[in-house]
Amino acid sequence: MSKGLPKRQDDYSLWYNELVKRADLAENSAVRGCMVIKPYGYSIWEKMQQVLDGMFKETGHTNAYFPLFIPKSYLSKEASHVEGFAKECAVVTHYRLKNDPNGKGVVVDPEAKLEEELIVRPTSETVIWNTYKNWIQSYRDLPILVNQWANVVRWEMRTRLFLRTAEFLWQEGHTAHATKVEAIQETEQMLQVYATFAQEYMALPVHKGIKSANERFAGAEETYCIEALMQDGKALQAGTSHFLGQNFAKAFDVKFAAKEGGLEYVWGTSWGVSTRLMGALIMAHSDDEGLVLPPKLAPIPVVIVPIFKNEDQLNQITACVQPWVAALKSKGIAVKFDTNDKFTPGYKFAEYELKGVPLRIAIGPRDVENKTVELARRDTKEKTSVPQEGLVERVLGLLEEIQNSIYQKALSYRESQTHSVDDYVTFQKVLDEKGGFILAHWDGTSETEEKIKEDTKATIRCIPLDIDRAPGVCMVTGKPSAGRVLFARAY
Amino acid sequence: MSKGLPKRQDDYSLWYNELVKRADLAENSAVRGCMVIKPYGYSIWEKMQQVLDGMFKETGHTNAYFPLFIPKSYLSKEASHVEGFAKECAVVTHYRLKNDPNGKGVVVDPEAKLEEELIVRPTSETVIWNTYKNWIQSYRDLPILVNQWANVVRWEMRTRLFLRTAEFLWQEGHTAHATKVEAIQETEQMLQVYATFAQEYMALPVHKGIKSANERFAGAEETYCIEALMQDGKALQAGTSHFLGQNFAKAFDVKFAAKEGGLEYVWGTSWGVSTRLMGALIMAHSDDEGLVLPPKLAPIPVVIVPIFKNEDQLNQITACVQPWVAALKSKGIAVKFDTNDKFTPGYKFAEYELKGVPLRIAIGPRDVENKTVELARRDTKEKTSVPQEGLVERVLGLLEEIQNSIYQKALSYRESQTHSVDDYVTFQKVLDEKGGFILAHWDGTSETEEKIKEDTKATIRCIPLDIDRAPGVCMVTGKPSAGRVLFARAY
Repeated sequence: MSKGLPKRQDDYSLWYNELVKRADLAENSAVRGCMVIKPYGYSIWEKMQQVLDGMFKETGHTNAYFPLFIPKSYLSKEASHVEGFAKECAVVTHYRLKNDPNGKGVVVDPEAKLEEELIVRPTSETVIWNTYKNWIQSYRDLPILVNQWANVVRWEMRTRLFLRTAEFLWQEGHTAHATKVEAIQETEQMLQVYATFAQEYMALPVHKGIKSANERFAGAEETYCIEALMQDGKALQAGTSHFLGQNFAKAFDVKFAAKEGGLEYVWGTSWGVSTRLMGALIMAHSDDEGLVLPPKLAPIPVVIVPIFKNEDQLNQITACVQPWVAALKSKGIAVKFDTNDKFTPGYKFAEYELKGVPLRIAIGPRDVENKTVELARRDTKEKTSVPQEGLVERVLGLLEEIQNSIYQKALSYRESQTHSVDDYVTFQKVLDEKGGFILAHWDGTSETEEKIKEDTKATIRCIPLDIDRAPGVCMVTGKPSAGRVLFARAY
Repeated sequence: MSKGLPKRQDDYSLWYNELVKRADLAENSAVRGCMVIKPYGYSIWEKMQQVLDGMFKETGHTNAYFPLFIPKSYLSKEASHVEGFAKECAVVTHYRLKNDPNGKGVVVDPEAKLEEELIVRPTSETVIWNTYKNWIQSYRDLPILVNQWANVVRWEMRTRLFLRTAEFLWQEGHTAHATKVEAIQETEQMLQVYATFAQEYMALPVHKGIKSANERFAGAEETYCIEALMQDGKALQAGTSHFLGQNFAKAFDVKFAAKEGGLEYVWGTSWGVSTRLMGALIMAHSDDEGLVLPPKLAPIPVVIVPIFKNEDQLNQITACVQPWVAALKSKGIAVKFDTNDKFTPGYKFAEYELKGVPLRIAIGPRDVENKTVELARRDTKEKTSVPQEGLVERVLGLLEEIQNSIYQKALSYRESQTHSVDDYVTFQKVLDEKGGFILAHWDGTSETEEKIKEDTKATIRCIPLDIDRAPGVCMVTGKPSAGRVLFARAY
């Protein structure tokens, strides 16, 4: 139970790891760096998927599925893609096992060696653009607005549940367009979809911005991103949307007959969010007692715990409770009425606190008599006894209030942890003493960015699109700066 | 377009392959045996997933996610599992690429060799039971009712889109129980879920039954299955549900403290359906003009094609159509109003016929004047002019009628292709001349089953649970038979 959960201020990292495990979200598997997403954790991911998938479809996208494996040679077709992308990949070299001739278990059959090795997809631009080549002949075939929900593998050396794992789940949108303008509009639209999702569903304030050249996706012309701040003052990239220009079209020779005649290369975008969002959700809101979930993504937004000593009392409580459950269900709110008698109410209270259930309703025989219930908010830990009359409306109102309140709390925190800094000494001091986001001037060069990273471990999270930018001078070199950019140490 | 689609009676296999490609369902990828599921095909799979997922949740299951990779040694832990399971697997041996020292592209880094090879999961019993070991201590932790939606890989030599591919998508349920009775109930319940889904959504009549020992899942005590009949007279296994006994619990040492005291091994089940269902759906109902989809799984149940020469005509038609689209949407029926002017109505008619849209509504200027529309059913190809008045109710009624009619047609076909046979000569004759299901007596031995398979290529599809079985004598050996079993040549 929540007893013994480490405190955030003592060891944030340990707190996170323990919370993920104890709240039944995920655990490490026997396979290095791969996680098991447990049912409770997966049900949060499913809610995220459902909302995002709806948003993708509303913006005209459809889902498809492309192969898990990528021929090794594909990776080198787009030069900067292979250059910039990490080479830590799972490589399939054989396609058969056989019984161990020495008698125990199975061994790899040396005769079943693949002619060309296959890479377990770390991302699918190459295999998808190789497919699009056959789908696109004319302007009539454009745009292609496709998304894929899939697992991907990047053989990370240091892994952490949800934040960085060898295998993770994600969606990757891959679109193809007739014009540059349309592709850029798509890139920006999907960035906005991600920002809306983060803010309205995850209750997570994010900055929208553009990555510096150093941090750009390998093969993209421009990478847009959303950046969030965690409770330890570190930033987390929560989603990216890439304008690919004609890079992959050129690498895979994807041309179309234009309406006006002539063959042109297709313009592309790709965009993705992953189970990393689970890490962001957990770290942004939770406390020393456990998870704090925004109602819109909570698998159990409301739990009702009956307090009873015998069947008769439970029956009376159930008679009270059933109409509320039905009424809330009809409003789209799932309610768990936990009548399990294997566990005590106290155990259940602690369990639902740990698991971040936004609203808990407790009802015992005296409440039945008095026509009251006890309401407990997970976010503020307020407990109040309220009349049963009008309970359903009260619950609906409270869920909305909790959703907003969690967002406002995260927003206030971010504002308190965002500093405008003009010189490099202060920059380093603020970074060490306070952390958080720092808005500072930068001369726009990779060299200066590299130097700052080496000196301080802070990176440019983005060139923000949602903050007024006035010119100034770089805090490191004194050269002209087009405007402040957003620095932070990051996950 | 549908012109040139091969005819079923000329070459059923070619007809299927061409239909899958031309109806934009799937295509072969550049990776041997792996398919690309195209947006239209994927949207049918999504509908299947959605319905099945709802049925799983209604029966108390939750989703989770387990690693893609399985350590090689796990496969040999359950003796009959490794013995019976095909050893054609994708084997990951390395975790890094590096730039080719000879200058071109990338090569596998020989220094990044895994200590133990990893197998891309062909099924997940081993990795899941290894995880359950930590989840289960006491009877309080049971049952575990978990499902996973995932991709799996089996390195098949001869592949066919949807029916047999190296990578495919599926769901695999893995449950753990305190008692044998409960585990068997679960196995049977999930078989019934599959049968209900096949019949009510896919409009596909299926036989429920039990596999003979030869055809049993490797590691199971009993394999239940649903078997369907395709239009070429071959059977297709559409889903399986396995009672695993305590086999995997013993292999991975999964015990629980019983309520009555003492440690006992856990009882298990696993059950799955895959993208193979897409193949079944296509082959069961489609005709020489293209797909025939049951309305409940059609991505576009209704299409409205306007026939217009100018903007003005289109506006008049749109004014008629919009209330119907809205009314049908409010009843849960997605309607596509195809105003795209890049294509002619004739082109669209052929396209929607090929893609199996159950109901097509055409409306031109004269229909606007006469307050009529033209309705065309995909399954019977009937066309009728009907009044606009009461159109929404008529459409709802027709969709239901089409769903039933497709099912009845498949059922009549199956009945006409099911033969009861008493001697082995007739058995072979019926098999060669008519195909279909044959109900015949068998002595219950693997030897006889093997002989029949060798002689005729027919296998025991199942020992049926839904057909009255009276004792008799085996058509091959003359030994006693407990009752007729269901034979067929199969996919």
